[in-house]
Amino acid sequence: MIGSLNHVGVATPSIEASLAMYRDLLGATRARAPFDLPAQGVRVCFIDLPNSQIELIEPLGEDSPIHGFLAKNPKGGQHHVCFEVEDILAARDALRAKGATILGTGEPRIGAHGTPILFVHPQDMGGVLVELMETPKEGAQ
Amino acid sequence: MIGSLNHVGVATPSIEASLAMYRDLLGATRARAPFDLPAQGVRVCFIDLPNSQIELIEPLGEDSPIHGFLAKNPKGGQHHVCFEVEDILAARDALRAKGATILGTGEPRIGAHGTPILFVHPQDMGGVLVELMETPKEGAQ
Repeated sequence: MIGSLNHVGVATPSIEASLAMYRDLLGATRARAPFDLPAQGVRVCFIDLPNSQIELIEPLGEDSPIHGFLAKNPKGGQHHVCFEVEDILAARDALRAKGATILGTGEPRIGAHGTPILFVHPQDMGGVLVELMETPKEGAQ
Repeated sequence: MIGSLNHVGVATPSIEASLAMYRDLLGATRARAPFDLPAQGVRVCFIDLPNSQIELIEPLGEDSPIHGFLAKNPKGGQHHVCFEVEDILAARDALRAKGATILGTGEPRIGAHGTPILFVHPQDMGGVLVELMETPKEGAQ
């Protein structure tokens, strides 16, 4: 079912500070422009690697789900892993049929790459918050 | 400096149980044979994805550094992110020159892919435990 590892989601109190760290310490210079995802309460920024991406995630607004994570991890840290799937609804239904819990309503939302996403409960995924994202169609960003 | 995202390291109390979860729930069936890394106190197993890998890590022996992580995260969870570098000593020296702390003695060890590795302190990496691994030469595993 899962395909490529699209990105690793990394929570941070400051996208700007994290970008500077990845650039100056790790030499990762291919960053895209940050943008807001108000419906998800986050501001995000992708750093391109040759085969995958790091998604920096900063809280947006007082109700951001990232505040709780940063309260426990003030410097930030690994937040989720995102795998691509061909068909998000088929993936959701297959996971539910096997007893896994999809977070929220279970209706996919549009994610940072413009395709439908959902999150699977970490208790069902070995303690890892797993995002599933429909693979962008050829030619899309 | 950093190149590809070689793998995401995921700690687990049981590689067998995690393999079953990745296979049965996520359909990730391309797993390699688990093996011990006694010098690092871990047993590891790689799951191949089209562009990267998940490294499952289980404690090996009473002194395993993974015991502490699992005490805090009994189900397991994201443990580290591994980036490839062309030259591990050059990477180490560049990081140190910029004030980052290399864990342990700072002398690279041979990692799970047979090439030299080292770990950078998460306090310098936005709360993420970062492994740097010298890229395997062409034709190597």
